[in-house]
Amino acid sequence: MVENNHIIAILGGTGKEGSALALRWASAGFTVIIGSRKVEKAQATAAELNKQLDKKKIIGMENGSAAKQADICVLTVVQEAHRLVLESLIDELQGKILVDATARVDFRDPRPPESPSAARTAQTILGSKVKVVAAFQNIPANSLKKDISLPINSDVLVCADDISAAQQVIQLGQAAGLRGYYAGGLDNAIVVEGLTSILISINKYYKIKTASISISGLEV
Amino acid sequence: MVENNHIIAILGGTGKEGSALALRWASAGFTVIIGSRKVEKAQATAAELNKQLDKKKIIGMENGSAAKQADICVLTVVQEAHRLVLESLIDELQGKILVDATARVDFRDPRPPESPSAARTAQTILGSKVKVVAAFQNIPANSLKKDISLPINSDVLVCADDISAAQQVIQLGQAAGLRGYYAGGLDNAIVVEGLTSILISINKYYKIKTASISISGLEV
Repeated sequence: MVENNHIIAILGGTGKEGSALALRWASAGFTVIIGSRKVEKAQATAAELNKQLDKKKIIGMENGSAAKQADICVLTVVQEAHRLVLESLIDELQGKILVDATARVDFRDPRPPESPSAARTAQTILGSKVKVVAAFQNIPANSLKKDISLPINSDVLVCADDISAAQQVIQLGQAAGLRGYYAGGLDNAIVVEGLTSILISINKYYKIKTASISISGLEV
Repeated sequence: MVENNHIIAILGGTGKEGSALALRWASAGFTVIIGSRKVEKAQATAAELNKQLDKKKIIGMENGSAAKQADICVLTVVQEAHRLVLESLIDELQGKILVDATARVDFRDPRPPESPSAARTAQTILGSKVKVVAAFQNIPANSLKKDISLPINSDVLVCADDISAAQQVIQLGQAAGLRGYYAGGLDNAIVVEGLTSILISINKYYKIKTASISISGLEV
């Protein structure tokens, strides 16, 4: 069970998606650490987000310290930094949940990424004592940021080999206004990554920016 | 533009999905040919479907004759027969649209299929004069069959390198009560195939049979 006295670190959290998630979790009562390779950058983002929130719930730290102090870590780095950041955090992440939001898709030339999924690669790098969960790869950061009190019209497909870790991440999504579904083991994450390519293609063809995925046919 | 004086062949159309699509297209006024390796099997399915429809709009033929006489062909074979059936129809399909509905996912052990997508493989087998379109891989055949006058709460992601062929297949989907979206080039079809693995995983976890995908964020 995720309680809002848990500490969430958002590693590589100075970008659009990390910042948007930070705002939503902080506003739900969680203590949130923005992690970055440079502590100054993390602190600047944290200060800016606290101003938006009008309370001091977000802290900026270097990625390693952020990961060490958090209960759950969420990785929102650019795809080029994925392997390097994970390799630098192997010790800090042991025993924890690592939520990997990476989708290796190029906006300008969207195509499905090669197997294995980014999340499976993370699991291989980090070893079996880290519970890797793939989630939040497809959330349009723009709609995340708009009004943090509104729920988002986009479902989160949560893939993990450890079902209890997946359930905690589904709860975490709910706290941010996102409806999540358990969508199978970690290998299914390659499909969720690839959905980003589908959504970008739909956005381009229909000249919109907001295409997202919903799951129908079930009431959970 | 797809007109309902066009002839549609459903190759390998004696199964659940092919039969359900046949019923819907015939009821929308199309002439539909059910193709099968065995003409007797195709004719038996056609007779059964005509009885359901209460009019004679569906014809049964051997796959080759069906493909030859149709304007648009839809492939709904079991995954094991995919390559063999296509290789046997190379001549008959030249110059036509081939809609590939194949999803190479095992219901009992759902995992994302290997690249390239079935539809890309079809394109390679058939050559560049056939317009291959990937569509209808994720439609739950059960809900297709229920009441053919009802629209289906499941969106169709249509992938093709030829956009005008994709548009015709989107219209064909509409005629069957299915909302379709252009979802990028043929290589994106590997993601749509993989969605079948996601949907089966969701069905298993939530103990339902009806999970399906919808696209939000756009009004087309």
